[in-house]
Amino acid sequence: MTAFADRLCDAVARAGAPLCVGLDPLPEHIPALFGVEGSLAAVQGFCEAIIEIAAPASACIKPQLAFFEALGPDGYALAHAATEQARARGAVVLLDAKRGDIGSTAQAYAQACLGASPGFDADAVTVNPYLGWDSLEPFVALAEARAKGVIVLARTSNPGASDLQNLNGDEPVWLQVARMIAPHTHRLAGASGWSGLMMVAGATWPHEARALRAAAPSALLLVPGYGAQGASAEDAVAGFVARDRVLQGGVVSSSRAVLYPPDARQARTLTDWRAAIAHAIAKAKAELAQACRA
Amino acid sequence: MTAFADRLCDAVARAGAPLCVGLDPLPEHIPALFGVEGSLAAVQGFCEAIIEIAAPASACIKPQLAFFEALGPDGYALAHAATEQARARGAVVLLDAKRGDIGSTAQAYAQACLGASPGFDADAVTVNPYLGWDSLEPFVALAEARAKGVIVLARTSNPGASDLQNLNGDEPVWLQVARMIAPHTHRLAGASGWSGLMMVAGATWPHEARALRAAAPSALLLVPGYGAQGASAEDAVAGFVARDRVLQGGVVSSSRAVLYPPDARQARTLTDWRAAIAHAIAKAKAELAQACRA
Repeated sequence: MTAFADRLCDAVARAGAPLCVGLDPLPEHIPALFGVEGSLAAVQGFCEAIIEIAAPASACIKPQLAFFEALGPDGYALAHAATEQARARGAVVLLDAKRGDIGSTAQAYAQACLGASPGFDADAVTVNPYLGWDSLEPFVALAEARAKGVIVLARTSNPGASDLQNLNGDEPVWLQVARMIAPHTHRLAGASGWSGLMMVAGATWPHEARALRAAAPSALLLVPGYGAQGASAEDAVAGFVARDRVLQGGVVSSSRAVLYPPDARQARTLTDWRAAIAHAIAKAKAELAQACRA
Repeated sequence: MTAFADRLCDAVARAGAPLCVGLDPLPEHIPALFGVEGSLAAVQGFCEAIIEIAAPASACIKPQLAFFEALGPDGYALAHAATEQARARGAVVLLDAKRGDIGSTAQAYAQACLGASPGFDADAVTVNPYLGWDSLEPFVALAEARAKGVIVLARTSNPGASDLQNLNGDEPVWLQVARMIAPHTHRLAGASGWSGLMMVAGATWPHEARALRAAAPSALLLVPGYGAQGASAEDAVAGFVARDRVLQGGVVSSSRAVLYPPDARQARTLTDWRAAIAHAIAKAKAELAQACRA
């Protein structure tokens, strides 16, 4: 089995840019072309169409479980189907679940997200570190056994991130997260040297991304906050490092900007809509590729 | 609409003890009486039977979503059905989901857990504060509108809790969580004076529970770690305060000890099993009621 880190790095190389397409199905933003607003059928059609376009064009796809769960058990089942569809199309799938619990409960969540059927068989899952290392260990152990990845929240992109993450003076909590996982990154390391024990480093805090990189040098980054949250492509790759004349070391996620660009929302036909989405993805890739030229 | 805090306090008074029954369906521990091990039907029958016994006997029921999610989308649907069943039987339901995300994503999770159908219509949900106040606000706003509760992780019961929660010297992160929510407790306050903006305070840290109580005096506590994790009933109510000669101020959860007592696992008939569960619940209630006698 190829290590998850290598699968992700290969996918970035194939796509030509570290773009992660965030799958955030917001019923009120899905064009009427897909059916009645708020209907499951519309959400399903939209997700299938996005995956069809994004799987070959981007480095990975990140379903945001919250938006599916808001649709109830049928929505949860739809997220499961979308994950299977994306993987069947060859996409690397990062399940954005931000789970976090202890002991056998953490183990159950790991199984739910990274285990084989009946749970999600995602390539990686986002997890919350607040409960400490023993809450992450079950995810890392399962990821080790199944060549998966684990993406730990360190410094999130939102303004409120500072409330708790910035505490502890010169050794802030977000930096301690990197120090806590660093001794374990080797367990999910690929042949590339990068580790699939990843960190979330918000694009809105480029200085912090560099500090996280220094504290856990091999951990790949998942960078949210690019585009819709106001950070530039340059800010988004602040924690990347130059290898073979290209900045490497993670993926940058974009959701709203690539799912709901203005011309897609105004499209009158599915053909026009597809062209608008493909264009938005190409634009994001071009910006990121440009920013990665070392 | 009666405030959630008052509904919970009334339920504690009716039950005669602050016992919260944690609904942790562990397929390998469910007696063969309920069907083939690991089958959904066995889990469903077990949950239904526990709810039937626990709804009238305990203060509240806490489904642990992780164990349902480990069973895939059908398991998630089962948690939804169990929540409806428990509420239909008059139980207060605390959904143990430990969700945490930002902005519209947090709003989607709030809707998924505390909104009306198609999501869970639980009485309260557990949330993770790592992303800061703006990640909690959508839950509190929805709880305000729908007379629900929000239970914020502060000091969890596991050993690894210290990794991040203890950082920041004399003003540790777990205490900052209490300080962060304290200005908002009035928004979910009931006629009793108690607030449904609750905190998780592990029974394994009685000293910290008292500090949390002092920092957010009206916040009800959800106390895990009693029984299976080794804390005594006295430790579990360390953060409670005397009112009308009874210690009040929260609920204490027990899962394994009341779901899988040795005599229930050895029961040969459902009647024997029911008696064993009822006995385990009565025992936990008696211990907690004793500890609450001020």
